[in-house]
Amino acid sequence: MSAPTPSQQPHVPGRIMSGEMAEQPAVLRRILEEGAPVIRETAEQIAGRNPRFVLLTARGTSDNAALYAKYLLEVLLGKPCGLTSMSTTTAYEAKADLTDCLVITVSQSGGSPDLVASTKAAREAGAITLAVTNNADSPLAEVSEFHIDVLAGPEKALPATKTYTAELLALYLFVEGMRGGNGPETAKALPELAESVLARGDEVKALAGRYRFAERMVITSRGYGYPTAKEAALKLMETSYIPALSYSGADLLHGPLAMVDNISPVIAVVTDGKGGEALQPVLDRLKDRGADLVVIGPAAQVDTASSGFVLPTEGVAEELQPILEIMPLQMLAYEVTIARGQDPDAPRALAKVTETR
Amino acid sequence: MSAPTPSQQPHVPGRIMSGEMAEQPAVLRRILEEGAPVIRETAEQIAGRNPRFVLLTARGTSDNAALYAKYLLEVLLGKPCGLTSMSTTTAYEAKADLTDCLVITVSQSGGSPDLVASTKAAREAGAITLAVTNNADSPLAEVSEFHIDVLAGPEKALPATKTYTAELLALYLFVEGMRGGNGPETAKALPELAESVLARGDEVKALAGRYRFAERMVITSRGYGYPTAKEAALKLMETSYIPALSYSGADLLHGPLAMVDNISPVIAVVTDGKGGEALQPVLDRLKDRGADLVVIGPAAQVDTASSGFVLPTEGVAEELQPILEIMPLQMLAYEVTIARGQDPDAPRALAKVTETR
Repeated sequence: MSAPTPSQQPHVPGRIMSGEMAEQPAVLRRILEEGAPVIRETAEQIAGRNPRFVLLTARGTSDNAALYAKYLLEVLLGKPCGLTSMSTTTAYEAKADLTDCLVITVSQSGGSPDLVASTKAAREAGAITLAVTNNADSPLAEVSEFHIDVLAGPEKALPATKTYTAELLALYLFVEGMRGGNGPETAKALPELAESVLARGDEVKALAGRYRFAERMVITSRGYGYPTAKEAALKLMETSYIPALSYSGADLLHGPLAMVDNISPVIAVVTDGKGGEALQPVLDRLKDRGADLVVIGPAAQVDTASSGFVLPTEGVAEELQPILEIMPLQMLAYEVTIARGQDPDAPRALAKVTETR
Repeated sequence: MSAPTPSQQPHVPGRIMSGEMAEQPAVLRRILEEGAPVIRETAEQIAGRNPRFVLLTARGTSDNAALYAKYLLEVLLGKPCGLTSMSTTTAYEAKADLTDCLVITVSQSGGSPDLVASTKAAREAGAITLAVTNNADSPLAEVSEFHIDVLAGPEKALPATKTYTAELLALYLFVEGMRGGNGPETAKALPELAESVLARGDEVKALAGRYRFAERMVITSRGYGYPTAKEAALKLMETSYIPALSYSGADLLHGPLAMVDNISPVIAVVTDGKGGEALQPVLDRLKDRGADLVVIGPAAQVDTASSGFVLPTEGVAEELQPILEIMPLQMLAYEVTIARGQDPDAPRALAKVTETR
């Protein structure tokens, strides 16, 4: 008898997602080694056009990468930014004057018709258009004036993991290139640090037990960690179906804190830097209320929480920490889903390329 | 024996919130009659300065009003817009060049220190600054170049209701004033329509039974109705503590749909217009999945759903419908909270002026 072909092999739940998570160090290395020169050249060309405003367009996981880029562009370049409300173009056919605007569209597949339509409309309205995708041959790359390939290789699991961290690093190198910084040098330790984080699956598995029977979760952060909180919530929801609510720490105090008590576990993403400092009053208040608080962040913060995952933040610029922060949270989504007897590779109802119009 | 002073009277749960909800028609009328001329004058002065880009800054309920204004500004004026990530200024001290930018800060109290600091920084960075508040003597009104008073009168319940609809109408009149439209004429039917909606408390009470034991809720919309979905989710969470997740219909298809099945009730806010049309494929897919779908919208949409609340949309411009749409959802938050034996006036942990920095 011959060996079974791959399609005949029994599917091990989560095998695809876990394989793609494990590829992340290699993808980061590829971007730093092969991608960086092209990204820098693109950044210099766009910087030469001197855009005054930046609009970012994306959906789902890529929308969280776009939000990360918004922080970089505002903090490091001082450019006013906005996230696109896509329906204003695709449903209401708004005609904007986008002269001096840079429109960055982020999409793993580069295939969503609404993103293509909205980018095309932006280019016609005078914008400089840049597509950041994992597919250089995609329709989105085609309609954009500039394109950055995140070089993550094919992504097959429905929950995006390696393309998210690849988008973050590519966007970081782009913004660093815009301001003439030396991004690849600042980021050079990332692949090895990512390996060290991903090797600690047992710690995450222990944390996952906490959430196996959770009916809801709250994830909070501030500053550069906020996109991580949003992406972690999305990942947890789309794999485990636990309602996971993400809030900036400041917004949490404006209302939803009413929901946080000892039956709503809270995960705080604490960057080692100004974002983490700004989150401190929120952490103090959560502890006062007796919240079950799990911290993803530096050792000193994890020590004072109910539990957590210590990130290697020493010597890592605050703006690069999100690339590592999300990894234990991806693993957490994976482990909670496995613990609940579901398959992280194939959540119900989720299509890889979503054809919203 | 003398009559008890007000503070000695026993507190009836929700009395303050329900009184403030009932004031909404009078507040809308006051804005149309007393506020409109001043708003128009402010709008004309700002239009004369020809801002090219608009940034909107707010938190909590006012952030949902700001998002509504973003749709108006993009669709009706073609101005590219962004919502401010406040920590980039307050934590990271980003220095942006805001020449030609209009920065609109929306705040019920006008008292949050972070909003005041961020508006002050924007003005120093060259922006035209406009504060939209319910307190003309507030620090925020003070530091802004322009100010619009939403004239809602003191709001005492912790969940904001009448200030939300007042902010929406004031922002609508402002944008109409910017483009030289006749806002007060277009909006003149609103106070009476609001009265007719608010008189239908019994219908909302019947709907509330559905959610009394709900462990989670999903609220979706597209276009002008999307800020309503976000505000309804916030209102439900801060009063009843039910995790309520809001998504644009397009984002829902990108992942969280995995969570929606016959145990997650869905409320869809369907505007009568292009936003509702763009939501149709999402509604169809939800029905295919057997979701419990409650529609807030025109009769034809409610008829095909599991249940709903019919809004008077005929002859009401799509961009004005959000001012009515939120009312049954405010009442729903109130009724669900009462049904769960809690007090909508005083949710746990919520302070009226949140002192985030």
